[in-house]
Amino acid sequence: MPNSFGKLFTISTWGESHGPSVGVVVDGCPPALPLTEAEVQAELDRRRPGQSDITTPRKEADTIEFLSGTFEGRTTGQPLAMLVRNADQRPGAYDEMREKFRPSHADFTYTTKFGFRDHRGGGRSSARETIGRVAAGAIARKILKLSGGVEIRAFVTQVHDIVAPTVVKFPTLAQVEATAVRCPHPASAERMIARIKQVRAKGDSVGGVIECRVRGVPVGLGEPVFDRLEADLAKAMLSLPATKGFEIGSGFGGVLLKGSQHNDVFVSRRGQVGTATNRSGGVQGGISNGEELVFRVAFKPTATILQNQRTVDLRGARTELKARGRHDPCVVPRAVVIVEAMTALVLVDHWMRHAAQNKTFKF
Amino acid sequence: MPNSFGKLFTISTWGESHGPSVGVVVDGCPPALPLTEAEVQAELDRRRPGQSDITTPRKEADTIEFLSGTFEGRTTGQPLAMLVRNADQRPGAYDEMREKFRPSHADFTYTTKFGFRDHRGGGRSSARETIGRVAAGAIARKILKLSGGVEIRAFVTQVHDIVAPTVVKFPTLAQVEATAVRCPHPASAERMIARIKQVRAKGDSVGGVIECRVRGVPVGLGEPVFDRLEADLAKAMLSLPATKGFEIGSGFGGVLLKGSQHNDVFVSRRGQVGTATNRSGGVQGGISNGEELVFRVAFKPTATILQNQRTVDLRGARTELKARGRHDPCVVPRAVVIVEAMTALVLVDHWMRHAAQNKTFKF
Amino acid sequence: MPNSFGKLFTISTWGESHGPSVGVVVDGCPPALPLTEAEVQAELDRRRPGQSDITTPRKEADTIEFLSGTFEGRTTGQPLAMLVRNADQRPGAYDEMREKFRPSHADFTYTTKFGFRDHRGGGRSSARETIGRVAAGAIARKILKLSGGVEIRAFVTQVHDIVAPTVVKFPTLAQVEATAVRCPHPASAERMIARIKQVRAKGDSVGGVIECRVRGVPVGLGEPVFDRLEADLAKAMLSLPATKGFEIGSGFGGVLLKGSQHNDVFVSRRGQVGTATNRSGGVQGGISNGEELVFRVAFKPTATILQNQRTVDLRGARTELKARGRHDPCVVPRAVVIVEAMTALVLVDHWMRHAAQNKTFKF
Amino acid sequence: MPNSFGKLFTISTWGESHGPSVGVVVDGCPPALPLTEAEVQAELDRRRPGQSDITTPRKEADTIEFLSGTFEGRTTGQPLAMLVRNADQRPGAYDEMREKFRPSHADFTYTTKFGFRDHRGGGRSSARETIGRVAAGAIARKILKLSGGVEIRAFVTQVHDIVAPTVVKFPTLAQVEATAVRCPHPASAERMIARIKQVRAKGDSVGGVIECRVRGVPVGLGEPVFDRLEADLAKAMLSLPATKGFEIGSGFGGVLLKGSQHNDVFVSRRGQVGTATNRSGGVQGGISNGEELVFRVAFKPTATILQNQRTVDLRGARTELKARGRHDPCVVPRAVVIVEAMTALVLVDHWMRHAAQNKTFKF
Repeated sequence: MPNSFGKLFTISTWGESHGPSVGVVVDGCPPALPLTEAEVQAELDRRRPGQSDITTPRKEADTIEFLSGTFEGRTTGQPLAMLVRNADQRPGAYDEMREKFRPSHADFTYTTKFGFRDHRGGGRSSARETIGRVAAGAIARKILKLSGGVEIRAFVTQVHDIVAPTVVKFPTLAQVEATAVRCPHPASAERMIARIKQVRAKGDSVGGVIECRVRGVPVGLGEPVFDRLEADLAKAMLSLPATKGFEIGSGFGGVLLKGSQHNDVFVSRRGQVGTATNRSGGVQGGISNGEELVFRVAFKPTATILQNQRTVDLRGARTELKARGRHDPCVVPRAVVIVEAMTALVLVDHWMRHAAQNKTFKF
Repeated sequence: MPNSFGKLFTISTWGESHGPSVGVVVDGCPPALPLTEAEVQAELDRRRPGQSDITTPRKEADTIEFLSGTFEGRTTGQPLAMLVRNADQRPGAYDEMREKFRPSHADFTYTTKFGFRDHRGGGRSSARETIGRVAAGAIARKILKLSGGVEIRAFVTQVHDIVAPTVVKFPTLAQVEATAVRCPHPASAERMIARIKQVRAKGDSVGGVIECRVRGVPVGLGEPVFDRLEADLAKAMLSLPATKGFEIGSGFGGVLLKGSQHNDVFVSRRGQVGTATNRSGGVQGGISNGEELVFRVAFKPTATILQNQRTVDLRGARTELKARGRHDPCVVPRAVVIVEAMTALVLVDHWMRHAAQNKTFKF
Repeated sequence: MPNSFGKLFTISTWGESHGPSVGVVVDGCPPALPLTEAEVQAELDRRRPGQSDITTPRKEADTIEFLSGTFEGRTTGQPLAMLVRNADQRPGAYDEMREKFRPSHADFTYTTKFGFRDHRGGGRSSARETIGRVAAGAIARKILKLSGGVEIRAFVTQVHDIVAPTVVKFPTLAQVEATAVRCPHPASAERMIARIKQVRAKGDSVGGVIECRVRGVPVGLGEPVFDRLEADLAKAMLSLPATKGFEIGSGFGGVLLKGSQHNDVFVSRRGQVGTATNRSGGVQGGISNGEELVFRVAFKPTATILQNQRTVDLRGARTELKARGRHDPCVVPRAVVIVEAMTALVLVDHWMRHAAQNKTFKF
Repeated sequence: MPNSFGKLFTISTWGESHGPSVGVVVDGCPPALPLTEAEVQAELDRRRPGQSDITTPRKEADTIEFLSGTFEGRTTGQPLAMLVRNADQRPGAYDEMREKFRPSHADFTYTTKFGFRDHRGGGRSSARETIGRVAAGAIARKILKLSGGVEIRAFVTQVHDIVAPTVVKFPTLAQVEATAVRCPHPASAERMIARIKQVRAKGDSVGGVIECRVRGVPVGLGEPVFDRLEADLAKAMLSLPATKGFEIGSGFGGVLLKGSQHNDVFVSRRGQVGTATNRSGGVQGGISNGEELVFRVAFKPTATILQNQRTVDLRGARTELKARGRHDPCVVPRAVVIVEAMTALVLVDHWMRHAAQNKTFKF
């Protein structure tokens, strides 16, 4: 099932940018979770286009509708399907793309793989697909919150060459949401916003880096070998449009340290085993160790730019693609919400897997 | 199945460092593939400890035995089980670890998750688990080779702060194997080896970066959403012991470019559609585009060091861990073989998935 | 994913009897298949309630809507979501069931397993869930048809104690659809219909047996061990509401034969290897052998009856359940369509699996 | 993974009749379960050939060896691989089968599907494959036993046309093991044994029926839709060699009852909700209801007979197959052990799935 994610808490998304709808089925959701459409809508509103002057002007209310799986305000344990109708469609706006491959988009690979494609607005490769992930992630976040306090906070640490100072303290949601760019360091945020506006004015785009922190993760989530927690997080993040890299804890920079500098010494802290430092990023041997999860994701500059570009058409002939379309000049501000959603999905799934093997039977 | 990898070409590994054996079952292998134990052994020999003076002195022949799945020199399409007996065991050498948690190892997380652990040599968290992956990967590599020329080449580009110059041309196997450190740039290799020996002399360790290139990949491997080719490669790489990061194509450095600089312009090349540059790293929209796959993996410095370290014991009491044990002062030279194996496994699996959906029926 | 079926051609259903909707996502569908809503609707119309005077009087148009996955009349290879809104809801009609467990229904087990349940009309346990299966099955049937002639024909062979004579020749669709009970033997059909009306008049219900035949199945579908074709068919059939048994080929009756009588002798037929008899039911060693698939499914009498019944309530206290509700006095006439749908789903899935392993690579 | 079974407690078997070995990896096993090779051996001894004068004379000790996954007498939660070497091989004895298809065996379908086959003794289609299932099942049974008293008892109720009287009381293990045919009704057992000897004397074979009962199953195992408990049991049973049918509770015979006769009235029993009758066979709406699980499995007469048989060869030419080979004239006595093993595997897997969704989080 290439369009499903998760083993026990499983989501299956559907939908194209300019088809009738996008949506998701959540299968395996624990029963009796109090849940309203408004709670899911709140997360979708954080992801929605047009929420600030540095995102795409596409107008979409992205109104969620529950199709199944709740009864009298609670989940039933049955599949929970959620639907968002596509509204602001301009099919004609994409006629040029029927024949031409947009550089660094999925146009060429989809056409070759499937024989043809829904070319309108990227079809399935559009970031609108992530609406289903955010909706499902809202449920996962609620489960984590009610579980006793797992908190997930993603935020922007870099836009183009503007790098915010290292965040030491777990940022509050208010700090992240304070600026349109979702960087909790106000001075950096201001510079990032200016940079995004500046490149947009030239019809260009920029990339960025998102850091995600999670606190309150119990010890024991993740599997020793293939399904290490960091492996599933890496897959989750690289499954997002426009991502080019993932690192956890010390990451690529950790290569510069020696083992004696890099090792996280164990200490006893409030009666719990912890580590004095956190270069492991909260995971050891593939399994959460109770420290903060810390990882970063690199996003490339948006492939859609308002400049003419050389390319080839379906027959391989040289042609030029005219500058047009609606897009985010930088995806990271809205991607923050999606990173959080995918993180929540990974954690709930692993929590259930952990419990299944280790809590079902007592010997 | 936390110890399985792959959807259609599936491997399931078993075994601990100081248990009776390590091994793997390959399920879904295409039938009639000519295959001998010697071919698998050749890859295991590249991975084997003790092959040079910069690897662990543990002596293991790592002799492979086929337990099933071949008949008269060919695969039967039935499960192919492969076994390697553990030989050089020194159980007593690990008595100290029964009670103490080694920093940045899996000791604490395994014990907490499973209630107890096989502490000898890391048990399941030992890199010996990767023997099964390399054996299975040898089969996948042969399939790819016979498919018409997919070639996978991984090599070391960084050890500690020694960074080899960017490799432009696809390195030959001979260039990679020319030095014990498996860096195809001889001058850098020499410095890397010297650095590894130097840190080992002090009982310390260093990390490094491996780059992997693949050429000959057909267009169309990978799925649009969750099972993007880069997502599954990221998961494969982050499932390896000691990895902290993954990036594809432009990676984290791509953030510094604008969209107009980063986009890979399509061109017509020998009658095929290709891209003038390869910042995409061979994947667009999650699907291979026929260009070289290019990705990099960061490995942390080996956690085992020959220095006394502070830690806590099972009861949370402060203690000290004595310097002892056999280990690689730097894992990247041998990890090259494992990175190649995992890459081969991902590609064969996706090739089968692609064919299943797109080649089974004609309309 | 407890609500998904199929490994490569995967369906995920959602929805409750009296919730907003029922639906399905088909993932892994081959691209470029010509497909219209009308084709799917035609199968749903065969399944629809109220189509004859021996089915439930519940009025449901069961109008299908494609939510994604087609473009210009063809499948795109992306998830195809299909929605049916529930219309004829009488929520108040089920108030009694909130507190009482209906005998031989899922009321008690759902409540105990999930802690509470959507009691309206059976909720998720309602046969309305099979709408998604039939919709997805319509797609699978079309694939099989276009593949060169796989034909699936299910029909009723027994209602209560009325057993139709053994069907020798593959029945036509017209023969099956000729009577409301879908038994191709007209005299038996007449008696079956009379029996159904008779038990309904007394507020009672009866069960029956459906036979399913498939011709044109290529040799090679099915896997040697766990995923034998008959094993997956058995699972598919026992996953249908009200089923109590499955048998293939000679089935339970085959026990009465000796090996020398039961073995299907191989013969050469039109240049093809075939069998002189078909006690195997079209499967040998778990794999289709090119003969007709022949299997039978037993359905119990409908649990809902219009008679007062003793039972207990949520607190375990004795109570009585009043006679009321709308239901089919015998499920087999409509179940014929569902049996065909599930069969088609199993075959397409196994066809893709077979091709993936055996047709992707050539050695 | 066509050679794997189970979602959370997963087994993967390997091996051919006359290859080096047969074996199994158990993945997802709960940690800390006390387990010795002797316990597994005991179950294998019940399945072993040559244990009585009505089974095959093939001599196999079937000695189990643990390859991984235990430490100091307990499971570690890591993959537990188990190996049995094949001993009594007579490769030459099967030369005739290289070219000829044995009637009602897997010879033709394997050859067509995979292009060629390991013809020696049936290769992968041999019942020796079930050794891995029995070994894994022994672990599942131990888990169920320690869980507080789930007891699984399979036994023979029919051989050829000899049908034992309905068993009312749950039979003891001693009653089942009292006779070589494993029918707990001594008079019937005697007749069954005589019949088996009689058909064997003529080089022929017979089939039979096995009933399986399970008591102590908690309420709540099984999923509402595709993964109903009876669906997974049906799949498990139809995945066994030589099976042709499965029925649960009232089964095919239930068709003869009206709903008012068939419904299981709920009653209050020792403070628990139970049913007055058990036509449901212990499952309602796909979920266990706490009553005894009761199902039956039909096995065809052994395909290998000591009589000359007509057939065709690889080229489709008519030929004759000479009477030879070692085989069980009736498979049901040994299949009892395999039915129990598969049942245990299904139950443990569903127990873990149930706990994952319904016990991990509290709201």
